[in-house]
Amino acid sequence: MAGAVFAEEHRVLYYEADITGKLTTANILNLAILASGDQSETLGVGNAEIHAQNIGWVILQYNIDITRRPSVGEQIVIKTQADHYNPYFAVRNFWLETSQGEKLVDIRAIFTMIDMEARKMVRIPQVMMEAYQADKVKKIERIPNPMQLAETELPEVMHNFYHVRFFDIDHNHHVNNAHYFTWMQDPLGAEFLTQNEVVNINIKYESEIRYGSEINSYYKILPAVDGIVTTLHQIRVDNELMTEAEMKWRAVTD
Amino acid sequence: MAGAVFAEEHRVLYYEADITGKLTTANILNLAILASGDQSETLGVGNAEIHAQNIGWVILQYNIDITRRPSVGEQIVIKTQADHYNPYFAVRNFWLETSQGEKLVDIRAIFTMIDMEARKMVRIPQVMMEAYQADKVKKIERIPNPMQLAETELPEVMHNFYHVRFFDIDHNHHVNNAHYFTWMQDPLGAEFLTQNEVVNINIKYESEIRYGSEINSYYKILPAVDGIVTTLHQIRVDNELMTEAEMKWRAVTD
Repeated sequence: MAGAVFAEEHRVLYYEADITGKLTTANILNLAILASGDQSETLGVGNAEIHAQNIGWVILQYNIDITRRPSVGEQIVIKTQADHYNPYFAVRNFWLETSQGEKLVDIRAIFTMIDMEARKMVRIPQVMMEAYQADKVKKIERIPNPMQLAETELPEVMHNFYHVRFFDIDHNHHVNNAHYFTWMQDPLGAEFLTQNEVVNINIKYESEIRYGSEINSYYKILPAVDGIVTTLHQIRVDNELMTEAEMKWRAVTD
Repeated sequence: MAGAVFAEEHRVLYYEADITGKLTTANILNLAILASGDQSETLGVGNAEIHAQNIGWVILQYNIDITRRPSVGEQIVIKTQADHYNPYFAVRNFWLETSQGEKLVDIRAIFTMIDMEARKMVRIPQVMMEAYQADKVKKIERIPNPMQLAETELPEVMHNFYHVRFFDIDHNHHVNNAHYFTWMQDPLGAEFLTQNEVVNINIKYESEIRYGSEINSYYKILPAVDGIVTTLHQIRVDNELMTEAEMKWRAVTD
């Protein structure tokens, strides 16, 4: 069954792409959230409405499958749908497609809802999920955990430092989740990032990163298996684990 | 006289705004360049065509007057026009307006053209400027230099460090000029940036910053005169001056 599908068009702009001329994974996520925000506003359950009730959505995890990143100038369609939910978790799907319906990107996301002052989980209002026509379930379909960098490995693996900037905070007064992709992928370097194309990202958000924080972005590149390279990532602030991710890459052939 | 005006619409997206919910100055510049790129492509003199001839545009200086930064969700119109040129310099205008024609932002820019391999200035092909219907002149109208931080002052003034990231490079293989605004404004800090609103930016690019560079972003906040605070900025790499800017700010009253 699952909820109603909302769709909107977008032209990939030059400042949304990287050196390869393709939409960055950070902006893939920005566009996904744009579409869910627009759907929510259309249904009268947008951030303005729910923040007025002192509740807000928090992302817990994304699984992103990338068939092809669209290029600068390409017209794409962003689609989204609230899939299913239980009292504390909601699962949402996103797709990026060409205007001919070719699948480019497939995202599954797990959200929870919090009391914005107490910063504690609250029950998701059923009336809201009914607006999305999402399915009510007992148990949500979980996304497997990303493969983890062992804490004992950390002193051995590579890491870069990043500073959370003023312009990393969005109008909801939080660090835009898309920036985590920049902090995680940038340390891999230009050679890796132009010779490899990301095909899957499993990212799990553990704790919120704040303005002014010093970020330590750890990463490890595993040996290729069947032509697929896996990279493991952890973002830590004061050694506390904030976010972890597993990414899969295929070699660029051209 | 001046050249033909090209216009396109844009909706301000949440990831183009800062914590205030207003379009960042970096994205004001991104949208301006988007419109000139679209005009050039329409006229058959886009980057693809001119790069094939081993020539490319380089920005020298912008003067940006900001009446009001548009907010998330606002529909705006970006307009641009090649104004006038001589053999080595071209002056272009940009405006951001509301859909009702209210002026939001007014930009004047000076470009030059280079041989992309030799990285040396070349004559601007007249046929190209005729495509834009720009006026041919003997002397272009210069933009005054930004007020300068004296080199002797540098050891005394505040500065922050930034690292040029992989995702700062655009599909033309150069650092996107808009990122300079982030490196210059971020050091001013959240308190300054939420209590003051930028009304004018005069930025002059001296030398190209490359991927991997360590940037030293110097800034000085001058005492307010008639309610206007002026900030002076310099970006240096290995102590070489790359870019300088003067920005004017008014206190936010609400």
